[in-house]
Amino acid sequence: MATGIATPGGRMRLYGDCIPCQVTVRFRDVMQVVEDEERRLELAGLVVRKVSELLEAGINDPPHLATELHRFVKRLLRVDDIYRKAKARECSAALSIYPGLQGFVESLGVDKQRVEAAIRIAVAGNALDLGVSGYSPPPPERIAEEALRKAVHGGLGEAAELLLKARRVAVIMDNCGEAVLDRVLGDVLRSLGKEVVAVVKGGAFQNDITIAEARRAGLYDSFDHVVSTGSDAASVFLDEVSNEVLSILRSADVIVAKGMANFEYLTEVEKRLAKPLIYLLVAKCRPIAKELGVPQGSYTVRVYSPDSRFL
Amino acid sequence: MATGIATPGGRMRLYGDCIPCQVTVRFRDVMQVVEDEERRLELAGLVVRKVSELLEAGINDPPHLATELHRFVKRLLRVDDIYRKAKARECSAALSIYPGLQGFVESLGVDKQRVEAAIRIAVAGNALDLGVSGYSPPPPERIAEEALRKAVHGGLGEAAELLLKARRVAVIMDNCGEAVLDRVLGDVLRSLGKEVVAVVKGGAFQNDITIAEARRAGLYDSFDHVVSTGSDAASVFLDEVSNEVLSILRSADVIVAKGMANFEYLTEVEKRLAKPLIYLLVAKCRPIAKELGVPQGSYTVRVYSPDSRFL
Repeated sequence: MATGIATPGGRMRLYGDCIPCQVTVRFRDVMQVVEDEERRLELAGLVVRKVSELLEAGINDPPHLATELHRFVKRLLRVDDIYRKAKARECSAALSIYPGLQGFVESLGVDKQRVEAAIRIAVAGNALDLGVSGYSPPPPERIAEEALRKAVHGGLGEAAELLLKARRVAVIMDNCGEAVLDRVLGDVLRSLGKEVVAVVKGGAFQNDITIAEARRAGLYDSFDHVVSTGSDAASVFLDEVSNEVLSILRSADVIVAKGMANFEYLTEVEKRLAKPLIYLLVAKCRPIAKELGVPQGSYTVRVYSPDSRFL
Repeated sequence: MATGIATPGGRMRLYGDCIPCQVTVRFRDVMQVVEDEERRLELAGLVVRKVSELLEAGINDPPHLATELHRFVKRLLRVDDIYRKAKARECSAALSIYPGLQGFVESLGVDKQRVEAAIRIAVAGNALDLGVSGYSPPPPERIAEEALRKAVHGGLGEAAELLLKARRVAVIMDNCGEAVLDRVLGDVLRSLGKEVVAVVKGGAFQNDITIAEARRAGLYDSFDHVVSTGSDAASVFLDEVSNEVLSILRSADVIVAKGMANFEYLTEVEKRLAKPLIYLLVAKCRPIAKELGVPQGSYTVRVYSPDSRFL
């Protein structure tokens, strides 16, 4: 273990904060679809009852609670993708800034500089989140600016080194607009001769990118492969994802995990994956900031390594 | 019924939004007192279960749900006043701006101008609220500035006329800092020869002023009487308050009700009170803004009159 930014592997359990946050975000789902105030109230009541039941059933980590609740709300609403329109808007906005960012990064002379700049953009893209109560995403044009200006906590340099040494990289994507900006990282790594795979969701989870949006977002232009988890879970739950995804995670030299839910989940299975993981995220809530040991709102790169030979 | 700002009397029922809001605000109570993260999670779980039970038991208006939940959290935490420190801070901050506001209003030449200015200050004071999820109160020095500058929706002029005609006025107070600013209204009305009574809570509800803070807030200097509801409910629930409060409400010519919870509750019993009511509040959440027919965040004066002879 080389630095303070590498962790021995842990598990992100539920914080109390997750309860009001998840109730709030699930009610926001309801508000997207239902206009009638009586029906909204009824559904809000069903959501709190479901939260209570899931807690009593022993669910004790944020991504599993979020997954079950999001599925519950989709069933109640009989809607398979609540954020379809929001995702289309996000995707268009991100596509409008992608060429400028991509061109800027391409213009940098040194490989490590290019990888670091692409990582910064990937972190900043995680600000485009609709799944955190009390948090409003900035307009995408601010993302571009902040990507290169904002302080990044953690192991930016170490993450870049790991990626420069890797031959095969899997990027586990998060939100839809963010995924468009992750293309810059795909472009850079491929230009350096690496094989880069984008892992997207099979079904809708909040505003996360699914295989349905991958073409529109241009992922096929920036990654060697785009694969679906085959699931609508908040992250790549190993007991749920397709065999293709399992084999991609197994064969990757480094896994890049975008966003809070992937951080929350993958810390559960870091040891089983037994390879370097790079978490790129904005620490939007108190529990995540506390787990990462950074101030709330920080742009963060967290590197996990099972073995000092990787660092 | 003279104008659009007078209503025939109604009832504010729960909105779906109230559910995540109340869960969030009650978890904020927990966070004030409990440091241990495991215990916070456990308490958050108990809060959602309680919300679910109260809804199933048929509680269907915001102030009763808030009252029962706040009592539940106080019992769980074994703390009888969660916001004691926050209230002391608010009170000091408001006391530091009170003399300037009071002097300014006193300097105005025309009675109606003075009453209107005091109403504006009373409305602006309602911005000092800690009980609404997703809402952060402004610093008190901004309150003074905004009181006289911001647009006021509703019947400011009609409210001033009602108060000018009244002989006895009861002011049902809300938050602790706000109550200090309500003194300006007490001062003006008393200088016009009216008898003015301040109604404060008997026990702690959020950051609302209780009889324990009345002296520190200087209420006895600006009102003829200060009376306690004898209850820690979110508003003056008629089946809970002391006989003294019932008789004050009965004998008042006009009742001034500060803040959202008093609006939510008193609309239930407007007809029984059978006299003019002046609601002064900032519409901090979507349901209240919708009920009032104003944009969210509006400074609002709402006049209820049971009979056109009052207007």
